[in-house]
Amino acid sequence: MTLTLPPAEAARELVEPVLRAAVDRLDPHAARVARYHFGWTDGDGRPRAAGGKALRPTLAVLSARAAGAGAERCLPAAAAVELVHAFSLLHDDVMDDDPVRRHRPAAWTVFGRSQAILCGNALLVLAGELLLEQKTPGYAAAARMLNHATLSLMAGQALDLEFQDRDDVTRDECLLMSRHKTAALLACACSIGVTAVEGSGSLAGSLFEFGTEAGLAFQLADDLLGIWGEPEVTGKPVLSDLRTRKKSLPVVAALTGGTESGERLAELLARPGQLAEADLHEAARMVEQAGGRAWAELEAERRLDAAARRLDEADLPADVRAEFLQIARFITARDH
Amino acid sequence: MTLTLPPAEAARELVEPVLRAAVDRLDPHAARVARYHFGWTDGDGRPRAAGGKALRPTLAVLSARAAGAGAERCLPAAAAVELVHAFSLLHDDVMDDDPVRRHRPAAWTVFGRSQAILCGNALLVLAGELLLEQKTPGYAAAARMLNHATLSLMAGQALDLEFQDRDDVTRDECLLMSRHKTAALLACACSIGVTAVEGSGSLAGSLFEFGTEAGLAFQLADDLLGIWGEPEVTGKPVLSDLRTRKKSLPVVAALTGGTESGERLAELLARPGQLAEADLHEAARMVEQAGGRAWAELEAERRLDAAARRLDEADLPADVRAEFLQIARFITARDH
Repeated sequence: MTLTLPPAEAARELVEPVLRAAVDRLDPHAARVARYHFGWTDGDGRPRAAGGKALRPTLAVLSARAAGAGAERCLPAAAAVELVHAFSLLHDDVMDDDPVRRHRPAAWTVFGRSQAILCGNALLVLAGELLLEQKTPGYAAAARMLNHATLSLMAGQALDLEFQDRDDVTRDECLLMSRHKTAALLACACSIGVTAVEGSGSLAGSLFEFGTEAGLAFQLADDLLGIWGEPEVTGKPVLSDLRTRKKSLPVVAALTGGTESGERLAELLARPGQLAEADLHEAARMVEQAGGRAWAELEAERRLDAAARRLDEADLPADVRAEFLQIARFITARDH
Repeated sequence: MTLTLPPAEAARELVEPVLRAAVDRLDPHAARVARYHFGWTDGDGRPRAAGGKALRPTLAVLSARAAGAGAERCLPAAAAVELVHAFSLLHDDVMDDDPVRRHRPAAWTVFGRSQAILCGNALLVLAGELLLEQKTPGYAAAARMLNHATLSLMAGQALDLEFQDRDDVTRDECLLMSRHKTAALLACACSIGVTAVEGSGSLAGSLFEFGTEAGLAFQLADDLLGIWGEPEVTGKPVLSDLRTRKKSLPVVAALTGGTESGERLAELLARPGQLAEADLHEAARMVEQAGGRAWAELEAERRLDAAARRLDEADLPADVRAEFLQIARFITARDH
C-alpha cells in the first residue's frame, strides 16, 4: 500500500486481486460476463485497463480501520460488497433496458439478457461465499448484514419499477426508495468492516447511520446530475433523466410542491411520444421554478451535515474520520 | 406429524409454515409474487389450495433423520432448499420464455419479467438468511453447501442456454448440464439435513452421491416424459420438448449415435419454422429408432441402481433408507 495514493486508489489495489480471484472461481460463462462488467476485459475477452472507483470497497476498508483493524482483515468483506453492487447493476440494466454502463455498452447488450442475469446471480452467491468461508463469527454476522442490505436493494428496485407506472408518487416515497436502493448498500459498506473484524456494535451502528445519510445525499446529488450534469461527466446524454421521464427526487419534489410550474411540468411529462430537445430544456426550467432543484440541493446539504454528525458520535481515529468525510463530500459534489 | 400420511405430505405440512413465515418477511412486491408462485394465492392475491410436491424439503427432512435428528431440527434447511428451487424456477421461466409452470400461468406472465426476477433474487437471499440466523456451525456449513449447489444450478442454466445455439452438443456435455442444473440441488437436499444437524461428513457425502445419481435418473425420466409423457401428467402439450427442439438427453443420444435415423432427425429438427404435428410424431419415432429412448431408459435404470448402492454405503436406519429409495423410484417412474 503506497501512502502517496489517495485512499480510494489504495483500497482498489488491495481489493481487486481478491475480486479477480473470486471471479476466477465462477463457471466460465458467468466469469466472462463478470470480467467484462468489471472493466477487466473487452467484449471479446481481451484485457483492458480496469475502471471503477471502488467506492464501496474503500468504505469497507475504512470501516475496518475505524475498529482499529488493518485493511487485510476485511478484504473479503470489501470484495463481497462490491460483488453485490455489481450484481445489482447487471440486473438493473436488464430491467431498466439501459444500454450504457460506465461509458461502455452494458453487459446484457454484449452477452444477452439471460447471461447477464445469471452472472448477477452468481456474483450474489459468490459474495456470500467469500464471507462464509472465513468461518468466523464476525464474518457470519457480516454475511447477514449483507443479506439485509441486498434485500433492501431489491425492495428499492421493486419500488422504482412500480413508480414508473404511477403519477402520484410522493417525495417521501421517493426518499424511501432511495433509502433502499442506494443508501442501504452504502450503509452496509460503511459498517461491514467493523462487523467482520468483530468491533463494537455501537461503532457499527453509527457508521451504518453515517452511510445511510451519505447515501441519501449521494442519490440527491446523482439525481441533480441526471438533469443538470455534463454528458462527459455522467456518461449519459444531457437532461437524460428528463428524457426517460425518471421520477427522480428533484422531479418529484417539483411535481408535488403545489406550484403552477409543477402542474405545467406534469402536463409536459404526460405528453405521449418522445420529448423534443426544446421540451426537455423547458422541463428542466420548470423543475427549477417549481423549487425541485433548490429542495434537492438543500436536502443533500442537510443529509451531508447529518452524516458528519453521525461520524462525530462514533469517536473515530482522526484520519479515518477525515477520510470518511472526504469520501462523503466527494460523492455528493456535483462537479465530478 | 400424522403417521398415516405418506412422508412427502408430512414434510410439506412441517415445512410450509416455515416457508410462509419466511415469505412474510419479504418486501410486499416480492412477497406477492412468491405467494403466487408457491400456489398459495391466485394472481389477485386471493388464497387458494396450495400445490407443489415439496420433493426437496422431504429429502432434507429425511437427511436429518438419517443423522438421527428429528425433522424439527432441519426445517430452516428444508425451507431454504425449497426457496432456492423456487428462485431457479422463477428465473428459468423468464429466460426460457416459458409461460406455464405447474399447470398455471408462470409468475412472469402475471407480474412481469422484472418483478419475477426480483422475487427470485429475494428468495435466494432469504434462503441464506434462514440458514445463517440459526447461528450454529452446522447451519453455517449448510449455507455454504447451498451456495455451492446454487452456483452449480446457475452454471447448468448457462450451459442449457449455450446448447440452444449449438448443433454439436455431445451426450457427455448434456449429462454434465443435467448434473449441474438438476442433480446438484437434489444432492444438496439429500445431504443438507446431515450437515445442518452436524452429523458425520461421510454420511453427508454418501447421501450427496445418492442425490446426484437419483437427480440424473430424474432428469432422464423427465426428458423421456418431455417426449412421450401424457399432457395431463406433464401439464405441457404432447411431444413438447420436440416442439421446442430442446436438446434433451434422449434427443442428443439419438443425434450423436451415428445412425441413419439420427441423421434424419437432425435434418428434421434443422428445418426452419414451426414443425407440423406429423413431423413431431415422426421426430419421436426417429429418436426411438436411433436408440435415444432405449439409451435414456437404460441410463435412468443404471443411475437408479447406483443411487441405491450409495444408500447401502451409508448405513442408514431401515425406514429412512426405504423412504429415500421410494422417493428415488417415485421421481423416476414414467407414469406419474
